[in-house]
Amino acid sequence: MSNAKNKDRVIIFDTTLRDAEQTPGATLALREKVEIAYQLARLNVDVIEAGFPISSDQDFNAVRRLHTRSKALLFAVCLAQFSKILTAQLKAGTEAITLFGKSWTLHVTDVLRATLEENLQIIEDSCAWLKENGREVIYDAEHFFDGYKADPEYALETLLAAQAGGAEVLVLCDTNGGTMPYQIQEIISAIQPRLDVPLGIHTHNDAGMAVANSIVALEMGATHVQGTINGYGERCGNANLCSVIPNIEFKLGKTAIGAENLKRLMELSRFVSEIANVYHDHRQPYVGESAFAHKAGVHVDAMLKQPATYEHCDAEAVGNQRRFLLSEQSGGGAVAAKLHHLIPGLDKRHPTVQKLLQKIKQLEHEGYVFEAAEASFEILARQILGSIRRPFKLINYRTINRKSVAGSEVEAIVKIEIDGQIYHTVGEGDGPVNALDSALRLALESVYPTLKDVRLEDYKVRVLSSADGTAAKVRVLVESSDRQRVWNTVGVSENIIEASWMALVDSLTYKLLLDDIIVVG
Amino acid sequence: MSNAKNKDRVIIFDTTLRDAEQTPGATLALREKVEIAYQLARLNVDVIEAGFPISSDQDFNAVRRLHTRSKALLFAVCLAQFSKILTAQLKAGTEAITLFGKSWTLHVTDVLRATLEENLQIIEDSCAWLKENGREVIYDAEHFFDGYKADPEYALETLLAAQAGGAEVLVLCDTNGGTMPYQIQEIISAIQPRLDVPLGIHTHNDAGMAVANSIVALEMGATHVQGTINGYGERCGNANLCSVIPNIEFKLGKTAIGAENLKRLMELSRFVSEIANVYHDHRQPYVGESAFAHKAGVHVDAMLKQPATYEHCDAEAVGNQRRFLLSEQSGGGAVAAKLHHLIPGLDKRHPTVQKLLQKIKQLEHEGYVFEAAEASFEILARQILGSIRRPFKLINYRTINRKSVAGSEVEAIVKIEIDGQIYHTVGEGDGPVNALDSALRLALESVYPTLKDVRLEDYKVRVLSSADGTAAKVRVLVESSDRQRVWNTVGVSENIIEASWMALVDSLTYKLLLDDIIVVG
Repeated sequence: MSNAKNKDRVIIFDTTLRDAEQTPGATLALREKVEIAYQLARLNVDVIEAGFPISSDQDFNAVRRLHTRSKALLFAVCLAQFSKILTAQLKAGTEAITLFGKSWTLHVTDVLRATLEENLQIIEDSCAWLKENGREVIYDAEHFFDGYKADPEYALETLLAAQAGGAEVLVLCDTNGGTMPYQIQEIISAIQPRLDVPLGIHTHNDAGMAVANSIVALEMGATHVQGTINGYGERCGNANLCSVIPNIEFKLGKTAIGAENLKRLMELSRFVSEIANVYHDHRQPYVGESAFAHKAGVHVDAMLKQPATYEHCDAEAVGNQRRFLLSEQSGGGAVAAKLHHLIPGLDKRHPTVQKLLQKIKQLEHEGYVFEAAEASFEILARQILGSIRRPFKLINYRTINRKSVAGSEVEAIVKIEIDGQIYHTVGEGDGPVNALDSALRLALESVYPTLKDVRLEDYKVRVLSSADGTAAKVRVLVESSDRQRVWNTVGVSENIIEASWMALVDSLTYKLLLDDIIVVG
Repeated sequence: MSNAKNKDRVIIFDTTLRDAEQTPGATLALREKVEIAYQLARLNVDVIEAGFPISSDQDFNAVRRLHTRSKALLFAVCLAQFSKILTAQLKAGTEAITLFGKSWTLHVTDVLRATLEENLQIIEDSCAWLKENGREVIYDAEHFFDGYKADPEYALETLLAAQAGGAEVLVLCDTNGGTMPYQIQEIISAIQPRLDVPLGIHTHNDAGMAVANSIVALEMGATHVQGTINGYGERCGNANLCSVIPNIEFKLGKTAIGAENLKRLMELSRFVSEIANVYHDHRQPYVGESAFAHKAGVHVDAMLKQPATYEHCDAEAVGNQRRFLLSEQSGGGAVAAKLHHLIPGLDKRHPTVQKLLQKIKQLEHEGYVFEAAEASFEILARQILGSIRRPFKLINYRTINRKSVAGSEVEAIVKIEIDGQIYHTVGEGDGPVNALDSALRLALESVYPTLKDVRLEDYKVRVLSSADGTAAKVRVLVESSDRQRVWNTVGVSENIIEASWMALVDSLTYKLLLDDIIVVG
């Protein structure tokens, strides 16, 4: 490994705040944008594109507010003959400005409705005007590769115009995402000798090439890369910085945010996913929950012999971890590896391991996924090992949900036994699961006061087989925390209330396990 | 466009049935494997890898059963000194066999525990033995690129051994998925002159490069590519054939399954996702629901002016379609474009369009996503336009859910009014939503008998804000069908039962709309 100081440095330009909002289903409030920007700054990203000030007051305010937090913040402007756009951008007060210009003759004539000569003048003048006003100019050559394919000489002229206007970096954009890596190489090779300003790259993933095209451009000497966290963005998304950055650090032999910051990458990926309220892709390179997960028995055995054989990089370097998944295909080795954390030194041929393996197979067959619910796995293992006691015994519960024009009523009644004593409680809530949670806690918290710290962070429902419509089995996954730790539990039933109840009971049980309250012996 | 007959032909080798099962959370029953194989054969995939006969009876049976359906079917064998594996593969009776061999010295010494010389002999002998038994041999050089990086000459020798043994194709595998496209180019350039047998490529996506690496290898002259539908596979997955195949046809200028079959690609992608019970990634290139979705107002306007400006290929060529998404950011143009299908000729400045836009903004703010529930959007639009009547009026409903050691009871009571008459019904079910569905249908089906054809195909629940745990808002999406058509509806509430009820009511309403029963005027 060469010293980081000797490595070429790549500028990371994050456009999550502007482009990720284009993701179907994702919207960000101003407060959320500020939170993301704060985390991006902590990650040591060089440039944060904060928004498009002319598009809404919210975007204008975001840019203004973010501007006060970091010197590195920028914002986007769509190049146009309308000076009010440039003026709005200038008023937002950032030290650098992204300027979009048209490289593709089709866009100039059909969208901008200008002559080719006018467009070149607009590009040069806009860059020059922002420079005169003391701003650093990042020039995004929109549709550059498509433009080049249509008319190489004109596309190059647009870059020369931006260069003449004083742009600090010329960012080549594959806006429609249809360019192949070998085309990126060919086109950059052709234009590089004719330009004096550093190149950047901005790609989209419509052909599955966003990350590859970015890395190929950087390998050829581009020094600036634009993308978003988790690759969010319109259509198929932008280049995923959670793949681009580790590839720069581990594969390209260059450096960006640095090794220490890289360890926070997975945390940031999950954080942005949560804020944007978009499913976190568990198969995502580097930062997906499954990225270092080993399922098949043969691989798990090989992994244990020699970890480098089935992992292309160290999971912990990006804040991830190696996982041994439990499934029908995994042998006793995987269960033993997992149990090893619980009971160091446990032999994998121990009868308890075999019993647990049988039980897991049966439950997974019924629809459980312990991969996503390690707390439920640990409770199950400890129950079979006899190392915990159940905190209570259920006698019965009941939920009643009534809706009419007058409004709605939701009630849950729970009857449980703790240490020979009966607790009969009633709870209300917005929904039946919430009401059950209230009633159960009312009974449990008087005996186990630390349960007051448990918060339900997330609640997911998945139908396991769609063949029977609403009568199909559902799997409920609950994420809980006590502000210090986070854990996941699972419940499966044909009844959503019962599946939720199971995951809820496991969640509270796990807290008592963590607090050493129900541990036996 | 050149004639397909003049284009180079690429062999598509599908390993969904073997590798996709390694996806965390995915398992396939024998019946499901046969269904997928049937659909793959319809798509005109060249080779279907059916399984690994030695690993389980189920895999053996899959291979046997699939073998009888198509001549193109193959199966996998892990190269080893154990002749029982080779014998099992042979017994399964396919006409070709995939043989895995070790290219990386680390794997030879630490996993296979053989000498480097022994490994070369094993490779040559295994290939030769299968050839003598009349089989076509597809040689998968496991960890080829990592092996080459460690010891170029030895890695090449393993290929020469397979070639000497009579292998028909030498498939270079990036098993750990950490190789960059420019390394693929460099390594293939170096080995190509020394080999006489065609090359193939098998990649994994751990660095986000699986599709790019496949295409780069094909561009350099490889003629065989291995991958899975939706890129399913262990860790971050295999090369996604749903991206690789369209890239071959549209970008590389070569051909694979052909233009007509390509139109079924999205259907197959969704089908496999459904069978494997894995989330269908809506941002997936080409076949994702969002791949041709346009959200921002500026793009929608440009799209309407000139469709080629923001799409890199024709959505319908892969069985997808262009979508105009409705969101806070979209202008009246997008709503009008959507309404255009409902009421041809409607002016986008019409007051109804403005009113609908306001309503959509408000509902999306509350958590609705009409992108994923077009039937609910149509009902809403038609209600505002006054072109449908509501099929019934709710007076009240009630669900009761009771669980005890003796078992559980779920009951729903519904009171509705249809044309001035009261219907008071009770239903049972496995869960409260199922019970409500039963009770509601009992009342409605006596008046609207075509509702008997409606099946609920899928039911998804998403918590919208995790800040309040179980008291957060939930969004329910329901997919329904009447065997001819499929539609999606949505409901949002803090109460999961109420959100489900809303989506359920919209689903049944939509069926009546389709059947022209509640259309006014």
